[in-house]
Amino acid sequence: MSLASAQSGTDSFTARLAAVADAVEAKLDAILSQDRTGEQRWPERLRDAMRHACLGGGKRLRPFLIVESARLLGRDGDGPLTAGCALEFVHCYSLVHDDLPAMDDDDLRRGRPTVHKAYDEATAILAGDALLTLAFEVMASPQVDADPSRRAALTLALARAAGAAGMAGGQMLDLAAESSAGRGEPALGLADIRRLQAMKTGALILFAVEAGSILGGASRKEHASLLDYGRALGAAFQIGDDILDVEASAEALGKATGKDAARGKATLVGLLGLKAAKVERDRLAEHAIAALARFDERAELLRAAARFVAERRS
Amino acid sequence: MSLASAQSGTDSFTARLAAVADAVEAKLDAILSQDRTGEQRWPERLRDAMRHACLGGGKRLRPFLIVESARLLGRDGDGPLTAGCALEFVHCYSLVHDDLPAMDDDDLRRGRPTVHKAYDEATAILAGDALLTLAFEVMASPQVDADPSRRAALTLALARAAGAAGMAGGQMLDLAAESSAGRGEPALGLADIRRLQAMKTGALILFAVEAGSILGGASRKEHASLLDYGRALGAAFQIGDDILDVEASAEALGKATGKDAARGKATLVGLLGLKAAKVERDRLAEHAIAALARFDERAELLRAAARFVAERRS
Repeated sequence: MSLASAQSGTDSFTARLAAVADAVEAKLDAILSQDRTGEQRWPERLRDAMRHACLGGGKRLRPFLIVESARLLGRDGDGPLTAGCALEFVHCYSLVHDDLPAMDDDDLRRGRPTVHKAYDEATAILAGDALLTLAFEVMASPQVDADPSRRAALTLALARAAGAAGMAGGQMLDLAAESSAGRGEPALGLADIRRLQAMKTGALILFAVEAGSILGGASRKEHASLLDYGRALGAAFQIGDDILDVEASAEALGKATGKDAARGKATLVGLLGLKAAKVERDRLAEHAIAALARFDERAELLRAAARFVAERRS
Repeated sequence: MSLASAQSGTDSFTARLAAVADAVEAKLDAILSQDRTGEQRWPERLRDAMRHACLGGGKRLRPFLIVESARLLGRDGDGPLTAGCALEFVHCYSLVHDDLPAMDDDDLRRGRPTVHKAYDEATAILAGDALLTLAFEVMASPQVDADPSRRAALTLALARAAGAAGMAGGQMLDLAAESSAGRGEPALGLADIRRLQAMKTGALILFAVEAGSILGGASRKEHASLLDYGRALGAAFQIGDDILDVEASAEALGKATGKDAARGKATLVGLLGLKAAKVERDRLAEHAIAALARFDERAELLRAAARFVAERRS
């Protein structure tokens, strides 16, 4: 199904998500296999490891959120898709580094060996570094938007979301919580877990919606509504992830499950129990849906995304 | 000595390098200790590791090259200095990751424990990631230049220089050469070593000059001359580094020496011998100096930088 032929509306959400994922996969593949010659040539092993990290799977939810929030504001075409690929490079780099032995030490990702298993640790570190760098190369390129002030704004916002105050900082808090749990110290409270999750997972999801808003030229009020949606969606998504780690099979997820509890990871499931965590996830998804009130039926796909996050099984 | 009071001319090169280094140190410190509150708060351990990686030393040659090549074109002030700090963050991240056990496995850097020794491996990986990300946050910020098209151009050029076709790719080639030497395979030839070094070290030095050129609004001919200078300077710098690894004491360098040969690293010293490597280094430094012919005495500091690279002892 081509991206152009997808329709909007609740029923078509799954089809639309798949169509965007296909378009993202094709563009990621194109960027990672460009016929780079002379000074732009990449070492083969590095390129292969980067391709291993990015291609062949993933729901591509973050690019979907960029594409659909831009589209909600009347902005269509290649720009939001390209920005979505830049964001996906950041997401993929974070998975490669998080999987390293010194971090979460995972052997399996999307049903395949992780990059340091398929290659080696040094290659995995470098592939992650190169993907993070590539993300900014793509985001700053004219393909994303003809207006350089928008590209600069997107680059700045992406760096904030991915850095020490965002995703990288969240991973640091996560590891610190694990190791203090290992020493028998008191577990994190609700506020700390919320902060950790808003940084570790929430920041990139919030950025996706923010990027769509920038690309679509949102009004101040539209921008605020979209950020409200993005914040709640990100929080619901992470709680959903924690619930899946307890409930889903490794086969369905394509990665090991049940590891959070074994490692003493700080999660809302651990703190509140499964039932209360589900209530909280659903409350956040409802909040996300309500935040889109001003957009009437045009926002149906984004509302469906919130329901999807609350109901997903893999 | 304050940045503003430094004079130009050959004799004042050392003083000027030190003045820029002081200004860079102060700005790096300020960026890394901003009173970040609320959503912009950084985890303390991560911030400390980032500070450990960046502060307290280094010649700051790359920022110097940005500042002085912009100044050659009449552009002074905080913008080039801020861009220099962004570049220095990239340089520092690369040192943190290169020092990791899975990479070059070094315990000592600038006379102090490397980040993974002072903290731990996970923290070092994340601190490197966060520094690379911060580099783009700083480069895309209005402090660098009021004109967003220049910021977007700088961001794009920095990403290209640091990524798979530049520094990260060069490190990949370096590790691959080491491990093939370990298997007794034939060593790299001259062209391959040149390519490796142009990527691993040359790309960031070339970018420094390119950035100064962009910030100073160089004409097409000025831009070409500066790039010619930067390319030769970067190559001379790396050969100088390889020579120092053989000749200098660990004390003078603040890091272990003699490791290149022990590891089977691909260097021009290894391929051609010390004497021929020195001839090549000096030839490149002369080429760099000659490339600046169009700038008459205004370029004296950049010429002095080329002589410094050829003559440095630490």
